Amino acid sequence: MIFEREMYLGLSSVDQAGVLFYPELFRHAHDVYESFMASIGYPLERVFEEGLHAIPIVHAEADYRLPMRHGEAFVVKLRVQRVGTTSFTLSYDFVGPGGEPCAQVKTVQAFVDRAGGGTVSIPDALRRRLDDFR
Amino acid sequence: MIFEREMYLGLSSVDQAGVLFYPELFRHAHDVYESFMASIGYPLERVFEEGLHAIPIVHAEADYRLPMRHGEAFVVKLRVQRVGTTSFTLSYDFVGPGGEPCAQVKTVQAFVDRAGGGTVSIPDALRRRLDDFR
Amino acid sequence: MIFEREMYLGLSSVDQAGVLFYPELFRHAHDVYESFMASIGYPLERVFEEGLHAIPIVHAEADYRLPMRHGEAFVVKLRVQRVGTTSFTLSYDFVGPGGEPCAQVKTVQAFVDRAGGGTVSIPDALRRRLDDFR
Amino acid sequence: MIFEREMYLGLSSVDQAGVLFYPELFRHAHDVYESFMASIGYPLERVFEEGLHAIPIVHAEADYRLPMRHGEAFVVKLRVQRVGTTSFTLSYDFVGPGGEPCAQVKTVQAFVDRAGGGTVSIPDALRRRLDDFR
Repeated sequence: MIFEREMYLGLSSVDQAGVLFYPELFRHAHDVYESFMASIGYPLERVFEEGLHAIPIVHAEADYRLPMRHGEAFVVKLRVQRVGTTSFTLSYDFVGPGGEPCAQVKTVQAFVDRAGGGTVSIPDALRRRLDDFR
Repeated sequence: MIFEREMYLGLSSVDQAGVLFYPELFRHAHDVYESFMASIGYPLERVFEEGLHAIPIVHAEADYRLPMRHGEAFVVKLRVQRVGTTSFTLSYDFVGPGGEPCAQVKTVQAFVDRAGGGTVSIPDALRRRLDDFR
Repeated sequence: MIFEREMYLGLSSVDQAGVLFYPELFRHAHDVYESFMASIGYPLERVFEEGLHAIPIVHAEADYRLPMRHGEAFVVKLRVQRVGTTSFTLSYDFVGPGGEPCAQVKTVQAFVDRAGGGTVSIPDALRRRLDDFR
Repeated sequence: MIFEREMYLGLSSVDQAGVLFYPELFRHAHDVYESFMASIGYPLERVFEEGLHAIPIVHAEADYRLPMRHGEAFVVKLRVQRVGTTSFTLSYDFVGPGGEPCAQVKTVQAFVDRAGGGTVSIPDALRRRLDDFR
């Protein structure tokens, strides 16, 4: 399965040339990530409230292939690339109005014990839901 | 008429207490403003492209009445409060899940001649559309 | 006394015309506010850690008088405008290279009991420090 | 040579746990990048004004090694990793108060002809200045 969300590139996300200001791509990816986690029964705000573990992002990268301009709409396609023991990798493809791949983000999320700080195993219930999107 | 949009309060917009980081309210208001301007045939990206005039915001203010928390969804209700000769005022009411008023933003937009820098009259076509939302 | 800080207007804070994107002024004001609070012995991160009270911003406003452009540096002058029983008001003047007033922000901070949610009195030690900057 | 700048992690850059919100690392890296480019005689605002070419970021990545917390100060060490024909690579090491490496960002900047959209060679004068920081 693929998780999809639309996004609109507003003034808050562009630079002086009217194209995407590059850190903003990660912000948009994160919004999609939050929607995804909520959709599979794992809303991030509950992770913070429960306080048992944290899911810090330990690596993030992006390739910018085509200019993304102010006023354009994109589809973001989130896929689960890898589910390891204590971390998982997501990819986010930003697709333009004509289906063209404009940018791609990848993020690696690690599971950490909030008390001790060490990595912990991904809960089984979450692992199963993640596997549905590989 | 009232222009309405939903918004979701994600991690990118909250502070360490999990409640809205106050400058982010203006960012969300601006996203709604862009949608509104596009909906009445006046997309901001075209204003920049044409380069004839600018619509700088000359005043902005916000009242924060109730905590807005990470993971909550709100409805933003945009109204036109005033249409003057060279400027107009918008209000944005952020309403919680139970209909409670959580915050209100007001912005004053001025019409400016990009070449000379002085204020200019709001175009008649835009004025008529704005009047529909008073 | 006046608390002063320099700021630089980078690409992250401007719009497609190369001038300040208006919500960013509040972000810069907040950075100055944090420096100020730390300088008078009241760093915000300690407020969050202690968890006794919160200091939500209940009102914020800004007047934008002159275009603030990408690549320009400004001095921000913070003053305490008012110290009430349970809230205080700050003003932030953004001054350009030639001393010209470019923008002004005002914020109202309220003291709130984190457990109960009601307003509480400003601690005396903080009140005395705030009075030094009126 | 290494180009160094201090940064402070304020409330605007942290999440609900009081640690860095990951997209914000790129924003801070970009602020350092702007300072660097200005320091070697190549201020970005002039690139936009002249309109001859653009320097889009075509790849960005970050490794997050240690939690970076609200209220902490860091030193950012910018190095030039590679200078190619039409692009160059920068690294940004974020170092904590005790000298510990907390995070690293890498960005790849490409030179593009604004009119035609194709890549162009890095100007010789800039190439020489970049080589000083390898």
